[in-house]
Amino acid sequence: MQIRQGNPHLITRSLSPENQETPIQFLSNTVTPEKLFYRRNHFRYPLLSDDNFFLSVFGSVTRPYHFSIRDLFNFPAQTIETVLECAGNKRSKFEPKVAGEQWEDGAISQGIWRGVPLRLILEQTGLSERAKEVVFEAHDKGKHPGYPQPIRYARSLPLAKALHPDTIIAYELNRMPIPGKHGYPLRLIVPNWYGMASVKWLKTIRVIDTKFQGPFQTDDYVYYPKDQKPFPVTAVKVNSTIQKPLNLAILEKGTHEIKGVAWSGSGEITKVQVSLDSGVNWTDSTLTKGSRYSWSSWRHEWKAEQEGEYKIKVRAVDSAGFVQPDKAMWNKKGYGYNQISEINIKIK
Amino acid sequence: MQIRQGNPHLITRSLSPENQETPIQFLSNTVTPEKLFYRRNHFRYPLLSDDNFFLSVFGSVTRPYHFSIRDLFNFPAQTIETVLECAGNKRSKFEPKVAGEQWEDGAISQGIWRGVPLRLILEQTGLSERAKEVVFEAHDKGKHPGYPQPIRYARSLPLAKALHPDTIIAYELNRMPIPGKHGYPLRLIVPNWYGMASVKWLKTIRVIDTKFQGPFQTDDYVYYPKDQKPFPVTAVKVNSTIQKPLNLAILEKGTHEIKGVAWSGSGEITKVQVSLDSGVNWTDSTLTKGSRYSWSSWRHEWKAEQEGEYKIKVRAVDSAGFVQPDKAMWNKKGYGYNQISEINIKIK
Repeated sequence: MQIRQGNPHLITRSLSPENQETPIQFLSNTVTPEKLFYRRNHFRYPLLSDDNFFLSVFGSVTRPYHFSIRDLFNFPAQTIETVLECAGNKRSKFEPKVAGEQWEDGAISQGIWRGVPLRLILEQTGLSERAKEVVFEAHDKGKHPGYPQPIRYARSLPLAKALHPDTIIAYELNRMPIPGKHGYPLRLIVPNWYGMASVKWLKTIRVIDTKFQGPFQTDDYVYYPKDQKPFPVTAVKVNSTIQKPLNLAILEKGTHEIKGVAWSGSGEITKVQVSLDSGVNWTDSTLTKGSRYSWSSWRHEWKAEQEGEYKIKVRAVDSAGFVQPDKAMWNKKGYGYNQISEINIKIK
Repeated sequence: MQIRQGNPHLITRSLSPENQETPIQFLSNTVTPEKLFYRRNHFRYPLLSDDNFFLSVFGSVTRPYHFSIRDLFNFPAQTIETVLECAGNKRSKFEPKVAGEQWEDGAISQGIWRGVPLRLILEQTGLSERAKEVVFEAHDKGKHPGYPQPIRYARSLPLAKALHPDTIIAYELNRMPIPGKHGYPLRLIVPNWYGMASVKWLKTIRVIDTKFQGPFQTDDYVYYPKDQKPFPVTAVKVNSTIQKPLNLAILEKGTHEIKGVAWSGSGEITKVQVSLDSGVNWTDSTLTKGSRYSWSSWRHEWKAEQEGEYKIKVRAVDSAGFVQPDKAMWNKKGYGYNQISEINIKIK
């Protein structure tokens, strides 16, 4: 009888609220199963009630409407396979260190979401001429620094993004109802943007004719760089993760597979390059492209013939021409880390 | 209906072999439950066969014996609550970085082990006058750098340590048969020494009249410091872990609990001191002593009245007079890291 090797688990960063990252180094699936899908919460999980099964759309619309889930099922459905990445993914790598959840590489997952394009809903309610932004308010709420009363999680999208045909109100993840921890029953999914935009436990949609001012819009999820004016966190930056080998692994001489994933919110991945000599020479890896919004897989075969220490670097390039930079843009709240990926390896 | 907050899980460092650490920051129990008990393997899990239920004792003994598990149950039992800490625990904190499994604080767990004192077994077999060391060979085996054939995990103890009344051949962990991943059915337990001495899946005990030369004895589990001769890894160094707050947490003004555990293989913990000003001033924390070989818990109430950044340091002191050092002794293989524990906190 053989004792079975086990499985990887979510890595806990905090428990109240629950913040746990995906063990991405150990994933081989292209779709992240529910139990390994990263969890990022601002508050404790919301209480579910009958109220969760309705979605009010109001504000600068011509025909405000209270949609039931059944109403939403009656719209034509759209299926989107997409990466969701927390804006704070890889925060622990910033130097100098930045306070906040110390995410490593795993505040990212990939799923197949199915739901109603938001534009179809807004076509039904109509938009007033002054409509400017769409505010998504969620069921989860709690105390937030500087606010005496509990507040709800809420975010807005500019009209153009809200009306993009792939911005959907999802009710399924990976062919099942959305799990409780990921927004059941309704979650906004905004491909190409960092995860804070994909509001879970969606409660109301309010169209406004001003700029939304909530704390998760104008205080958090804002880049505060050192020598630049603050600006909002939006599209996912071109990025990659090395899944194998692990950093500081000791390997024997011979052939090793270097592999990982790469993704971008501004275009498709066109190239992932690997350097085995600290960034002097670069080789294109073998790329297996994902679908429009999903990550691509890359691999490179390395014949390690000499003992010694190696610094391996990896950089992804996207179709918009963005490349992972030598140095991530440091910012006070630690968002958008996408510096060239690197590991140090010892060959024995 | 409330969606329940979840539980912490083991953190995977590698899957083949399985190396997973305990989420010690999130533990409140004094005894680590099986599913959170750290797993440290050199090889894949062994095949279990009838052979596992016998233990041969031979070599420099007067009456070699092949003990069945039933024979072992007939000896008087001894119960030991003890910390088990991997010698590589906290390896990821060494500067410069050291290759190998990048353990953070969780390659440590605590359990209640029950079994037969090894000395009772050796009293039955008798020891030859020339007996010097006792070699423990395990069922797990595999390839090891520099060895053409698969080798078994094996370690030795000097006679004095082997005959210590609390060195036991355990058959129970936490009142249950030892789980498959932790040495079922028989595991050597050596309190006060790092975990490499507590050989899992025990197969044979061989008494020798020389010094044992296996690779896990003379190559691994040896300190190779920078300017000193190499010397073997044995007793657990005085050490502590801060469980709360988490490093780089953002907290509000007010009262916060700082808490954690402390342990030592050279005596009981007598004091755990906390500094809130980077090590200038130190205060004794409130200590709840564990049993002889288990960790102690400590806590300190902190009134954080001023906004700003704080470096909090913690050092444990044991009854042998050992104190956690300002700087861990760097060594090539990264064993025995016990530098003063520290976290950086932001008060908002």
